[in-house]
Amino acid sequence: MSKTQLRAGRAAPTAPAEALKRFATDVFARAGMPKADAAVVAEVLVWANLRGVDTHGVMRVPRYVDLIETGDMNPRPAMAVRTETAASVLIEADRAAGPVAMTRATAEALRKARDAGVGLALVRATTHTAALGYYTLAAAREGMAAIALAASWPNVAYHGARAAGVSTSPISIAVPGAEPVVLDMATSVVSMGKLNQAKRTGERIPEGWALDKDGNPTTDPQAARALDKDGNPTTDPQAARIPLPMAGPKGSGLSLMIECITSLVAANPLLAESLEGTPEGRRHRQNGFVMAIDLAQFGDPENFRREVDRLVKALKSLPVDPEAGEILMPGERGRRTSESRSRDGIPIPPAIYDELQALANRLGVAMFPSSSR
Amino acid sequence: MSKTQLRAGRAAPTAPAEALKRFATDVFARAGMPKADAAVVAEVLVWANLRGVDTHGVMRVPRYVDLIETGDMNPRPAMAVRTETAASVLIEADRAAGPVAMTRATAEALRKARDAGVGLALVRATTHTAALGYYTLAAAREGMAAIALAASWPNVAYHGARAAGVSTSPISIAVPGAEPVVLDMATSVVSMGKLNQAKRTGERIPEGWALDKDGNPTTDPQAARALDKDGNPTTDPQAARIPLPMAGPKGSGLSLMIECITSLVAANPLLAESLEGTPEGRRHRQNGFVMAIDLAQFGDPENFRREVDRLVKALKSLPVDPEAGEILMPGERGRRTSESRSRDGIPIPPAIYDELQALANRLGVAMFPSSSR
Repeated sequence: MSKTQLRAGRAAPTAPAEALKRFATDVFARAGMPKADAAVVAEVLVWANLRGVDTHGVMRVPRYVDLIETGDMNPRPAMAVRTETAASVLIEADRAAGPVAMTRATAEALRKARDAGVGLALVRATTHTAALGYYTLAAAREGMAAIALAASWPNVAYHGARAAGVSTSPISIAVPGAEPVVLDMATSVVSMGKLNQAKRTGERIPEGWALDKDGNPTTDPQAARALDKDGNPTTDPQAARIPLPMAGPKGSGLSLMIECITSLVAANPLLAESLEGTPEGRRHRQNGFVMAIDLAQFGDPENFRREVDRLVKALKSLPVDPEAGEILMPGERGRRTSESRSRDGIPIPPAIYDELQALANRLGVAMFPSSSR
Repeated sequence: MSKTQLRAGRAAPTAPAEALKRFATDVFARAGMPKADAAVVAEVLVWANLRGVDTHGVMRVPRYVDLIETGDMNPRPAMAVRTETAASVLIEADRAAGPVAMTRATAEALRKARDAGVGLALVRATTHTAALGYYTLAAAREGMAAIALAASWPNVAYHGARAAGVSTSPISIAVPGAEPVVLDMATSVVSMGKLNQAKRTGERIPEGWALDKDGNPTTDPQAARALDKDGNPTTDPQAARIPLPMAGPKGSGLSLMIECITSLVAANPLLAESLEGTPEGRRHRQNGFVMAIDLAQFGDPENFRREVDRLVKALKSLPVDPEAGEILMPGERGRRTSESRSRDGIPIPPAIYDELQALANRLGVAMFPSSSR
């Protein structure tokens, strides 16, 4: 049996969210972050695990430590407001961990929205922004409607091209309700995480998900490799597959516009630098956008919540597609998973557990307690 | 031969944009609009024809007149700012023609953006907003990045349901460049216009475009009929087909969130009213959202334009997918069509020509001059 099969045979340990947060906080503090910042990053990653978005959870901890060690992520950034207007701020993040910069941006967008009705915070030069829904949900809980965007390096095909040209650029929009409604979606047809998973399991991928090394459509996850910027097959794991944009020109068009209204407004271009192969373009860099609308300034916030609930009820009363089995609202599955994982713990795949254990040993940090189910 | 075949056999007359604008202005003025408002509506509709978006062009003129005659569109609205904050306005449009309300909203968003860095104008109770790209392009020409959204009645399937639950809710985003880049897209996989066209020609439609009368996927455009709110087949032309949302839950999720951040912030719910079958929900009503970011307040606008051009160049240098033949930017095809139609005139399909002629006769307005190609 291969090492992978042996691992797959082991039961996945589960860990309580609080234990994972303490562990991740200790790791990031040991890697150089102030304790408060380490706790913010841990909180945002473990939130993703709770919601079932494991690709954005603690499996990122070793990668974040790598980013600190290679100098791409700054554990002690000198974040500063570079531009301030009545309704907006542009924050220079100085390569801060994404959750640290985006949490600050969310607070600034809320502050500006309270002052001006609507508030925009742009984040320049951060790193992996993590799960965007965390920030919009936080804003919704403060009585705001919120939109968050993230710009990143090219890893998704541009429509009409046989190579990556745009990013998975996620979009999140949230509003308050009896339960907040939280959309959090990539503009690619499939996330890099799902494509990587199919590659590990060998499952065929549906048509329309990805291009192979020659830029042709493929259903073989092993073949779903990327071309590098010169059109040659690459083994670079950052570029090892090319998911297709959602709905063709719509997905790649949205991603292109997100780069323009995020990275180019913040004067920190990511796509062009990377496509041209400049030294800057080879580094891990992201930019972010958080916008908030203060609902109380436009009407009765209680009435807004009631209208959200009324709309949810009307949509859930539609005839159900038997194939789907259920009519779900954006974020509803994540909320359910969060309830069960808060109660039963978060499953950690054995391969991830081993990686975290190795990291704990290397940094001299105590491993989190876990139990096998 | 059927009447349709006879019509199809006739050469399409072409008309100069200016002649179409004068004609549409005369029609709307005769139908009760002040001349200046009539000219604004004509300008926005003919702009769509110039860009090749004929579904949003002068074929809408008779429909707009119907809306005035049924009382859904107010030719002399008392538009007023209902709420104003430092960075936003909420405009009560009093059932104004969409282009009149959205042009006002764009001007307000620009004014607020100049004051506050970012400006948001919400439009409450307008009618058909027409081609959103018109408004974001106008903002881009003023040195702004802009986002426009429109909310409307349910005519697109909600993911997981066998019935319409959300709207085609278009999204437009534009930024300045050597040529502005202008994305303008529906959140459905296909526009109602394209589905109607396939129904007329009898062409099979691709899988994944639409549901039939039982809520099942279909490739027969004749079968692509809607269920009404009780799940029964309907012949109501407003609901006669159900396009599927773009990328499943992503498209219907985006459309749902657009209703929330547009209609519900403006306290004018459209989806729930219609899904519940209230008298208000049976009327033609829309809401709009225009946001502008004043680029000059965040950096050098010339540098921004240069970076947009650099990104366009990098994307156009990627290896071309032979099936696409060319790598296009959002809005590029529309710009080319606009150049050729400005020179050669706008083709008017014979059936549309006849409808406009009948309207001209009924209202006693001179028909526009045209020539057969």
